[in-house]
Amino acid sequence: MKRTHYSKDIKPEMNGDTVVINGWVHEIRDFGGLAFLIVRDREGLMQVTMPKKKVPKEVVDKLKGLSRESVVSVTAAVKAEAKAPSGFELIPSCIEVLSLADSPLPLDPTGKVPAELDTRLDARFIDIRSPEVTAVFIIRSNMIKAVRDYLCSQGCLEIATPKIVATATEGGTALFPISYFEREAFLNQSPQLYKQMMMAAGMDRVYEIGPIFRAEEHATRKHLNEATSIDVELSFATHEDAMELLENTIAYVYQYVKDNCEKQLKLLNIDLQVPKTPFKRLKYKEAMDIIKNDPECAELDYGDDLTTQAENYLGQAIGEHYFIVDWPTGIRAFYSQSCDSDPSVCKAFDLMHPRMELSSGAQREHRHDELVMNLEARDLNPESFKFYLDAFRFGMPPHAGWGLGAERLLQTMLNLNNVREAVLFPRDRVRLTP
Amino acid sequence: MKRTHYSKDIKPEMNGDTVVINGWVHEIRDFGGLAFLIVRDREGLMQVTMPKKKVPKEVVDKLKGLSRESVVSVTAAVKAEAKAPSGFELIPSCIEVLSLADSPLPLDPTGKVPAELDTRLDARFIDIRSPEVTAVFIIRSNMIKAVRDYLCSQGCLEIATPKIVATATEGGTALFPISYFEREAFLNQSPQLYKQMMMAAGMDRVYEIGPIFRAEEHATRKHLNEATSIDVELSFATHEDAMELLENTIAYVYQYVKDNCEKQLKLLNIDLQVPKTPFKRLKYKEAMDIIKNDPECAELDYGDDLTTQAENYLGQAIGEHYFIVDWPTGIRAFYSQSCDSDPSVCKAFDLMHPRMELSSGAQREHRHDELVMNLEARDLNPESFKFYLDAFRFGMPPHAGWGLGAERLLQTMLNLNNVREAVLFPRDRVRLTP
Repeated sequence: MKRTHYSKDIKPEMNGDTVVINGWVHEIRDFGGLAFLIVRDREGLMQVTMPKKKVPKEVVDKLKGLSRESVVSVTAAVKAEAKAPSGFELIPSCIEVLSLADSPLPLDPTGKVPAELDTRLDARFIDIRSPEVTAVFIIRSNMIKAVRDYLCSQGCLEIATPKIVATATEGGTALFPISYFEREAFLNQSPQLYKQMMMAAGMDRVYEIGPIFRAEEHATRKHLNEATSIDVELSFATHEDAMELLENTIAYVYQYVKDNCEKQLKLLNIDLQVPKTPFKRLKYKEAMDIIKNDPECAELDYGDDLTTQAENYLGQAIGEHYFIVDWPTGIRAFYSQSCDSDPSVCKAFDLMHPRMELSSGAQREHRHDELVMNLEARDLNPESFKFYLDAFRFGMPPHAGWGLGAERLLQTMLNLNNVREAVLFPRDRVRLTP
Repeated sequence: MKRTHYSKDIKPEMNGDTVVINGWVHEIRDFGGLAFLIVRDREGLMQVTMPKKKVPKEVVDKLKGLSRESVVSVTAAVKAEAKAPSGFELIPSCIEVLSLADSPLPLDPTGKVPAELDTRLDARFIDIRSPEVTAVFIIRSNMIKAVRDYLCSQGCLEIATPKIVATATEGGTALFPISYFEREAFLNQSPQLYKQMMMAAGMDRVYEIGPIFRAEEHATRKHLNEATSIDVELSFATHEDAMELLENTIAYVYQYVKDNCEKQLKLLNIDLQVPKTPFKRLKYKEAMDIIKNDPECAELDYGDDLTTQAENYLGQAIGEHYFIVDWPTGIRAFYSQSCDSDPSVCKAFDLMHPRMELSSGAQREHRHDELVMNLEARDLNPESFKFYLDAFRFGMPPHAGWGLGAERLLQTMLNLNNVREAVLFPRDRVRLTP
């Protein structure tokens, strides 16, 4: 029988209607004359109530041998029942077992037996069944949709750039090599160079949401070797324009999730606060002055990149989303443009959540000769970047953009302990399966 | 000066208004006392008219040394002018040169000098500037948006599955190997196994639009080694349900593009016809009966896969989108479910455009033991698929789905000769740059 309703679509007002539900056996409670079957679908739980004298014998008999987490289809009458968790119960006229689950289960999807993250990830297909984990991925889908809707409303075209590339974006750091027929190639660590070339191509404002690959040997709660990057690049724009679009994107996404994922947020116990725009702009130098108050950051000097400890200290001091701007040129990527008034400072920015960095961006160097000098200053060979540099020789507009980590956005929004909880099948230093 | 308008947003009714436009110098025509500067942005062309006596000298002087394809910002007054191509011309009060283009150009973006596809792809950042090529990628962005909007309206959640995997989806065929730290891994050729695991996870209806990688040594006009796949999987659904969703998606996308990309379609000279649903269902056996009429397909027997010649012949005979159903089990993937009444035939389908195959799908085998038998019948080792098979042991709903090639969808919709024209930076047997 074909499903007529998801759990969320059945209301007490449908008293007397016949419905067909599909789902997993979340729980069976048999009290002799009365049995309850709790059925779970993507949207929630439903209580199937079986007063054994009133329900056909062949339906009651289906309970025998029915294991937890088996898949069933239930045809039932809706009965308004104030005492039931959703205000209704279902009185079955037919139960069809579509897939019988083996036991014991590798994991308990009701969440009553807590499990380590590694155990959960090993049995991810069952772990996701837990309503709290399902909620995370329903929110992720909504979050990505909100990002797209907002960027599209701002005139950005969606693009797809190659993941297999011949050259490293930032010159050899941490790339996974591929055998590409008889040649060596690499997995792209960022769409950076390609989205910039799209500015030369006249695409004007573009975005891409796709996988990026970094062969870094991190083993932290905020790093992944395969992640999803939200990349934006804007022509005829400054880093200020890019920051404005970024903060507005974040605020839009929070509001969208708050409005559209009420049930999931409640399940996760999250009282989502939409961050107020504009976000605070903190100069790198000001940030360093704050960090100096932390004895554990005593060794950090002007010109150093921020350590995790420094990020945490700063985050606690600021307490909300903020930008760090006016970075020392030397510690930013070669494609950042330095300030005209003081070339030792550049037009790069980081968007920070109190817990961690979410995004990096900059006004880009769009002048060919200056870009070549930037490469040389970092001991990178302009010859290896010819395919990219050529795009700056025949009319390249000023442009700016950013890359935002989708998993970190979700992790910080939902206060997830580990970034791996924000990915269906994480890839890290040791994990390559499932 | 900040842009106030794209070309498409300036109307004759704005006569007298001051606007700021940004774009590329598409053409310069200097007739002595009168000069025309045609400026191009993503949305079209604009005519800047300079009667030299009426325009400030410093503005006229900017024309000297201004090369084609340089990037400019022009502040100008709108003047309604029935003779101008868009019904208006712009009288400039300020021209700022933002980026001067070198010459000669590696390619002519006005399209007046035709170029080979390879030459075009080598200088892709200029090739895309041609309004016809820009139009293809504006339509691509709209097409992908339409797919997402439709699938979202049908209750599908967007997911992201790993591109780096330990095992081949279909057992060793044509994979790119990666060095993943000290191990060997592969680029995923399809999200197939992962989206099926999401059915066991209770995600119910999912889709993913992302890169897939195939190390096949094709050199045809319809194959790519890195492509974009639109993948869908539906729980509690049959192959008939999956086909219905697929044909409705295609019809929705055509209608959306027709409604939202009128200007681009006109530029490409496409009179887009929205295909009528339901599409014809042709049994594999019926297809073979038609193909037998083609002397060039004389060697094709029942049980063979269709050759390109056979697809072309069939496509000409049918003349519109159609499904081929009821395939011989032996030539379909192990995860297709065979028919109960005749196990030599399976519940797989292909969606065909008269020019080529667009999509493959099936009702999947959701029964663990039958799936293991399917693997063994194809000499695949169930041990290598343990991470996937486990998901079938603890409650797996019946499910069906499909994968649709985004580039082929665009190629056939816009009647592009070569699939490479549907990708910004194609990857093939010989091309790895730019």
